[in-house]
Amino acid sequence: MLHFSDRTAWELEENEFTRRVRARRDAGLPLIDLTRSNPTQCGFNYSDDLLAPLSAAGAAVYEPAAFGMVHARQAVAKYYGELGANVREGAVCLTTSTSEAYSYLFRLLCDPGDEVLIARPSYPLFDYIARLDGVVLREYPLHYDPIAEQWWIDFVALRECMTPRTRAIILVHPNNPTGSYVHGEERRQLEELCVAAGIALIVDEVFLEYAIDASEPSFAVGEAKALTFVLSGLSKVAGLPQMKASWIVTRGPVDHVQQALARLAIIADTFLSMNAPVQFALGAWLANRAQVQNQLRARVHANLTYLRHCLRGTHCNVLAVEGGWTAVLQVPVSSEPSFADMALDAGVLVQPGDFYGMGTARVVLSLLTPEAEWQRGLAQLPLHSFPR
Amino acid sequence: MLHFSDRTAWELEENEFTRRVRARRDAGLPLIDLTRSNPTQCGFNYSDDLLAPLSAAGAAVYEPAAFGMVHARQAVAKYYGELGANVREGAVCLTTSTSEAYSYLFRLLCDPGDEVLIARPSYPLFDYIARLDGVVLREYPLHYDPIAEQWWIDFVALRECMTPRTRAIILVHPNNPTGSYVHGEERRQLEELCVAAGIALIVDEVFLEYAIDASEPSFAVGEAKALTFVLSGLSKVAGLPQMKASWIVTRGPVDHVQQALARLAIIADTFLSMNAPVQFALGAWLANRAQVQNQLRARVHANLTYLRHCLRGTHCNVLAVEGGWTAVLQVPVSSEPSFADMALDAGVLVQPGDFYGMGTARVVLSLLTPEAEWQRGLAQLPLHSFPR
Ligand SMILES: Cc1ncc(COP(=O)(O)O)c(C=O)c1O
Ligand SMILES: Cc1ncc(COP(=O)(O)O)c(C=O)c1O
Repeated sequence: MLHFSDRTAWELEENEFTRRVRARRDAGLPLIDLTRSNPTQCGFNYSDDLLAPLSAAGAAVYEPAAFGMVHARQAVAKYYGELGANVREGAVCLTTSTSEAYSYLFRLLCDPGDEVLIARPSYPLFDYIARLDGVVLREYPLHYDPIAEQWWIDFVALRECMTPRTRAIILVHPNNPTGSYVHGEERRQLEELCVAAGIALIVDEVFLEYAIDASEPSFAVGEAKALTFVLSGLSKVAGLPQMKASWIVTRGPVDHVQQALARLAIIADTFLSMNAPVQFALGAWLANRAQVQNQLRARVHANLTYLRHCLRGTHCNVLAVEGGWTAVLQVPVSSEPSFADMALDAGVLVQPGDFYGMGTARVVLSLLTPEAEWQRGLAQLPLHSFPR
Repeated sequence: MLHFSDRTAWELEENEFTRRVRARRDAGLPLIDLTRSNPTQCGFNYSDDLLAPLSAAGAAVYEPAAFGMVHARQAVAKYYGELGANVREGAVCLTTSTSEAYSYLFRLLCDPGDEVLIARPSYPLFDYIARLDGVVLREYPLHYDPIAEQWWIDFVALRECMTPRTRAIILVHPNNPTGSYVHGEERRQLEELCVAAGIALIVDEVFLEYAIDASEPSFAVGEAKALTFVLSGLSKVAGLPQMKASWIVTRGPVDHVQQALARLAIIADTFLSMNAPVQFALGAWLANRAQVQNQLRARVHANLTYLRHCLRGTHCNVLAVEGGWTAVLQVPVSSEPSFADMALDAGVLVQPGDFYGMGTARVVLSLLTPEAEWQRGLAQLPLHSFPR
């Protein structure tokens, strides 16, 4: 008998839906995939020189620095300057993924058993990171208001989630998969709550620049009343998930920021995870981000328009999307077989809403899906089983 | 008041020796550094094409894989083939540092409060990693036998360190800074102990190929009776610390290996930390490692010979070095000022032994120090204050 940790005693069983998808693929049956969200495999054009900046002469030398090399952090500071934020490079800590960034922050703020609040629905990867770091996640609800056509934070429920062991609130901004930003009044309330409770705010802005209509300001803009960690990275900002370049920007009251940075520096120095070539290339990739961002935004826009067109005359609706790469489809099926099952039988893969904690009457589609596939997939979806 | 974690409540005060070194540097006084161990800054020649393999066309595409891309893991398997070990690529997990590898393994094997055994003296970074992961380190002693001229594991003390919460034994092979390998009988005993206690063996072999005389087999060679994780990486193997490429090889009884790999895959999938360009370049860097290794070995050999020459007629001795990049100097000073302090006053930086947990009567020198600096530094060391 060998003892493995409880924190890795995951339920390793495949869920029923995943099993059915695999069975269908194994049987060689066709499947149109409306969940593709890897930008490097969705038919976008990247610069032919994409990899050239990795060969900067400086990358032949190792110059360890806890938060990363100064020029790379300056490139991130410059990026925030372009977003209207005043970020010093000293406040930037480079990481190899936002997962690593979360893991640094969980360990900075929490001891085993301490708690962090996270919205539901949201990105499910947090469960794994938190559990590996001994952190307990508690979920506060995001509700959809179909009249106002917007998602809103249930602050009553959020306050009820808070305990003496709460150490931070995570906000994905805009959220994945709801595509909702946090606007003025909600932002003010969240910050006040954090200040009053003496806890930190962690804001994941990887999708920030993918606003559909009006853009929303970063949490790096303006005064930060609460200790705030703004996370982002090239995986979405420049459509380069294979480059593994992310960062944390620390803001807030000076004394809190100083303490946070001093501790964070030791965590970062323990791992020093980002290699030199990527640090040298970071500036060029950020500087050229518009080229890829524009293609992605055009795709998202076209797919969303087309989706709305397809839903006319049905009882299926797209929930309001303010930004990001996903659309949430509300369907009038909450019993078995679920809409995702029906879609699968029709040869189309969509993501069941329960994957993100929002039940089976909602499914998630990736707006990065190449147009031809998108159109074929939507045509095959059982949307017209629900005529209006 | 904002709450930070206890696990990051490090003593952030500079220690007295570090403060004195900084003061000397700030004052602009000259300092010959005999601790330089960054191979990219010690005057070795690297291939002009070093960075070229980062631009492999495939690196423009993201293909996430928990343990890393197959071709990169095959390159690591091939490396072990060259060391006489039969390693399948399915047993290889790529990481961005051995620190990350340790952190994965600590979380795989330990819940908060569980314990791992580590030799003293050894590499001090473990303290930070373990504490961040809520793991308690317990130290078993390595003793130096001046007659046999070798380091040996105190198995009596090691057994006394073991408790019901012990989950693994770490072995640095060869150890940093003692340069000692674990030989046949010690290896057998360690493995038996692990099997009997149902715990894992973690073997850090980053310096394996830097044997001074006879080479020692990797723990990846031969049958593994205990669940064994062999760690290594390019930072030493190819003298490329800036590339951030390391790995874990999992070996042992089939059922333990299967369970370990299934859990490890989920940890690795949560972080996916290694970027595509480095994965594409890994094979080339491993294939060309001899070029840099040969230069490093020549430097180590020359510096060690010269050091022995300088110590003749003094009461300072080099302890036996079997491998690695460091030499431990035994000096006849155990009171204040320490030998490291005396050296500093003479304008020479050496690493105090207490940094590695072996008191102040031993100091550590880096055998990678460029020859000219080495010779000037040794000439300035107060060795002849202790004539024989
Ligand atoms: C909210 C959110 N944060 C972060 C990421 C990924 O970031 P990274 O690739 O840097 O780990 C994703 C990817 O889907 C995401 O949805
Ligand atoms: C024993 C040992 N393991 C690992 C490392 C470094 O490995 P990495 O650069 O992969 O974190 C060192 C560096 O000094 C070391 O001494």
